[in-house]
Amino acid sequence: MKNGKVYPAAITIFGAKGDLTKRKLIPALYNLFTDNHLPPVFTIYCVDYLEVDEVAFKDDLLAGINEFSRNGIADEKKWNDFAARLSYIQGDFLKADTYLCLKGKLDAFEKQNKQNSTRIFYFATAPRFIEIIAEALYQQNLCNRDGLDRIVVEKPFGTDLTSAKKLNRFLGKRFAEKQIYRIDHYLGKEAVQNIMAFRFANYVFEPLWNKKFIDHVQISVAEQVGVGKRGGYYDSSGALRDMIQNHLMQLLCIIAMECPKEYESELIRDAKTRVLKSIRTYSTPQIFKNVIRGQYTAGNIDDAPRQAYRKEDHVLSSSDTETFVAAKLFVDNERWQGVPFFLRTGKSMPIQSSIIVVQFKDSPHKIFKDDIVPNRLIISIQPELEISLLFESKIPGLQMKLKPVEMDFTYQESYTETIPEAYEALLLDVLHGDATLFMRADQVEAAWKVVMPIVDAWKKYPAKELHLYKAGTWGPTASNAILKPYAKEWFRLSSRAEIKGK
Amino acid sequence: MKNGKVYPAAITIFGAKGDLTKRKLIPALYNLFTDNHLPPVFTIYCVDYLEVDEVAFKDDLLAGINEFSRNGIADEKKWNDFAARLSYIQGDFLKADTYLCLKGKLDAFEKQNKQNSTRIFYFATAPRFIEIIAEALYQQNLCNRDGLDRIVVEKPFGTDLTSAKKLNRFLGKRFAEKQIYRIDHYLGKEAVQNIMAFRFANYVFEPLWNKKFIDHVQISVAEQVGVGKRGGYYDSSGALRDMIQNHLMQLLCIIAMECPKEYESELIRDAKTRVLKSIRTYSTPQIFKNVIRGQYTAGNIDDAPRQAYRKEDHVLSSSDTETFVAAKLFVDNERWQGVPFFLRTGKSMPIQSSIIVVQFKDSPHKIFKDDIVPNRLIISIQPELEISLLFESKIPGLQMKLKPVEMDFTYQESYTETIPEAYEALLLDVLHGDATLFMRADQVEAAWKVVMPIVDAWKKYPAKELHLYKAGTWGPTASNAILKPYAKEWFRLSSRAEIKGK
Repeated sequence: MKNGKVYPAAITIFGAKGDLTKRKLIPALYNLFTDNHLPPVFTIYCVDYLEVDEVAFKDDLLAGINEFSRNGIADEKKWNDFAARLSYIQGDFLKADTYLCLKGKLDAFEKQNKQNSTRIFYFATAPRFIEIIAEALYQQNLCNRDGLDRIVVEKPFGTDLTSAKKLNRFLGKRFAEKQIYRIDHYLGKEAVQNIMAFRFANYVFEPLWNKKFIDHVQISVAEQVGVGKRGGYYDSSGALRDMIQNHLMQLLCIIAMECPKEYESELIRDAKTRVLKSIRTYSTPQIFKNVIRGQYTAGNIDDAPRQAYRKEDHVLSSSDTETFVAAKLFVDNERWQGVPFFLRTGKSMPIQSSIIVVQFKDSPHKIFKDDIVPNRLIISIQPELEISLLFESKIPGLQMKLKPVEMDFTYQESYTETIPEAYEALLLDVLHGDATLFMRADQVEAAWKVVMPIVDAWKKYPAKELHLYKAGTWGPTASNAILKPYAKEWFRLSSRAEIKGK
Repeated sequence: MKNGKVYPAAITIFGAKGDLTKRKLIPALYNLFTDNHLPPVFTIYCVDYLEVDEVAFKDDLLAGINEFSRNGIADEKKWNDFAARLSYIQGDFLKADTYLCLKGKLDAFEKQNKQNSTRIFYFATAPRFIEIIAEALYQQNLCNRDGLDRIVVEKPFGTDLTSAKKLNRFLGKRFAEKQIYRIDHYLGKEAVQNIMAFRFANYVFEPLWNKKFIDHVQISVAEQVGVGKRGGYYDSSGALRDMIQNHLMQLLCIIAMECPKEYESELIRDAKTRVLKSIRTYSTPQIFKNVIRGQYTAGNIDDAPRQAYRKEDHVLSSSDTETFVAAKLFVDNERWQGVPFFLRTGKSMPIQSSIIVVQFKDSPHKIFKDDIVPNRLIISIQPELEISLLFESKIPGLQMKLKPVEMDFTYQESYTETIPEAYEALLLDVLHGDATLFMRADQVEAAWKVVMPIVDAWKKYPAKELHLYKAGTWGPTASNAILKPYAKEWFRLSSRAEIKGK
């Protein structure tokens, strides 16, 4: 599809006044435009409820680019070119008028170009509007050509398995599955995309990538931020739904999946879904043993005070919502039987860092007297983009003494190319009709199925073993206990950060 | 032994006025002294034929340290301490008086210390003196305590299998095998010692280290120098005897050997010898197909003119001696059946560089459209000390395009420790009675056995297929042909050098 016919593109963003539009979508579209990735003819309709002055609206988007784009301050001429294709449509998502107005514009755009366009409808709205907007698009026949028209839905995709299934069924009645792009922006990250290349284009790792050679895997996504302004949403969600069900589960899938027969969207998503379906289901007692939840209390991060989660805006002062989860999971298949996958995520951590560590097994035959640290492959996703292999090496000197060292590959040193933002990659894929990096209905449901027993157990025992941890620490100490006997503690998340003394 | 009783050491160097003593042995002993690796009580007797003033002799050794030691200019006080233990013995290696005088000093040294000493006799002489000195040491009972007294013999150890066997028998009648330390200084190099640590302390590579995953191995030792003042010796030797029979063959052994049951001298040397004994023997026609010899003609290196080999001092103007060898060898055992080991060495090359490249096989299953460069492990021995893994990675950007990159481990970035000289490591091992890094009699003979059919074939057809190559090039183009179909050409020897535009 990437090399197919290029249609003009009509991109509609619902929720145009929201944070996502300003921080991510418009900067990404603008960068795609300046890098000549957008089709020569395109238009962007920004729909939201508020009455705004079009000039002020555009100025605000420009400010967003200047602040959040990886390329910094926008070029004035380029911006003017881009902004000329942008228009604001004031409209209530609940009212038919909004869609009639949109329909008029979309039809006029195609008429003017004398050809069909690819229509993208991006739901950058609160989840409660998804079904409403979808129904309206369906009623107005705005998105009914399954090779051309697409909707993009942001997470959270449902709040549990039942609601996710319901939403899938709802959308499935109105659009073909291949028209629905469920975003998990982690899959668009450069370093995450590279994991598949690393695993499947390098023959030296594949033979080692199984229970015979791998001891365990640690996947950590640490956020330094707290809940910020999102307390209302977050307090009803928590880290399990907000991070584990989607981002961490997807990272696990990429590490654990079988090699697909071809690099092809459906085959890749099949392979990932099979991983999710192979994850062992825990009983309630097993959940309390293998899944640790925590909530931050007041502390200091980077020398700035952070208030306790329960004091954050829009958070209940008696909240039992978890802001930290550490879990030990098993993928019960031929390749991974008995190999634990440790997942960890939390807010108000000392640093922001996403890292996957593949810990290889100890050698069955040791000829050196030194304690040997088994090999470790470290894939840093953010903020650094790196792949390192920890291995034992002779310390220079007159004795055969060993010490672990690292072979490093860093994007910074290896590439002159800039790193596109996840949303640039994902938006371009939507335009190209490539769904590889998007969540298929069955994937979303399978991921929900994994976390549902945990959701249910915690709902049943809301305060049981909710471990408090101080903001600016690595979460409750209980999270180390689940690593035993595989590791004493979670691996450091960033050597760079350590050097900086964090 | 390294932790056993420390005896005083009496080190005798025969050939004290030679280059090796000045450039390597004394700087190494001095560094061992300043780093507190020598026993508290030691003495060094420097024996040679020339009549020299002791003060001038020591000044010359000091100049050698200042010029050649890795630590640069010697500390005055330290040097004085060290020099006080040095003495020059003027003596003809052919005369009994020399050894009587030495005996008197060695006995007096032990008497004075009221205990035995470890006696080391270092043969830093022309090969023709080895048997003469050995016989004298034997006659005078200077080296007859097999737990204490040792001789150190430099290469060349024989000039062919017959002479090597004869020399081994000769020495074997006078000393126990464990008293004989045959030096191949390549084995003392830090990066070479590390190959065993790398292979046997890292479980991720061992499962891949065989014919199933390795396509071929390239071992290159390029010298930028010509024959210099060594034309007389070199012209009767050539690259095959001077480099392949010892250094390159030993590198091959370390790469190909089985893991020993323990890190123990005899077990390690057993494993290496087994590799040599498994190397396939070629018929004469196979030799001319699989072993390429070359000789340099006039050229330029680093913008300086280099004269043709046949114009070098003490070289016959009609010489057919090879200054370059490239060979394709096979190790016929379970692990390596069918995997070619390509060895290459030459003089007057563009740069000085010793590198081993392990080329892994291509993936049996390809899911990406890009041409994939199979993984490659690059072990740089000198001048850089590095280990790198070449692997495919996604080029940052909006498409799934791959490009090979490298994970690098460099001594420079990884260690604050300084790198000892090979001779420091080796001399300390001799003092400690650790023969791991020295050539056992059967190893030397096995290595000669490998090269003898080539020596014989070339002797029989002295001018046949002697390829001339211009000084400052990578040798005759015929050396690329033997790589087919495994590689188009030899891998680059140094990325650093390439960056410098060489």
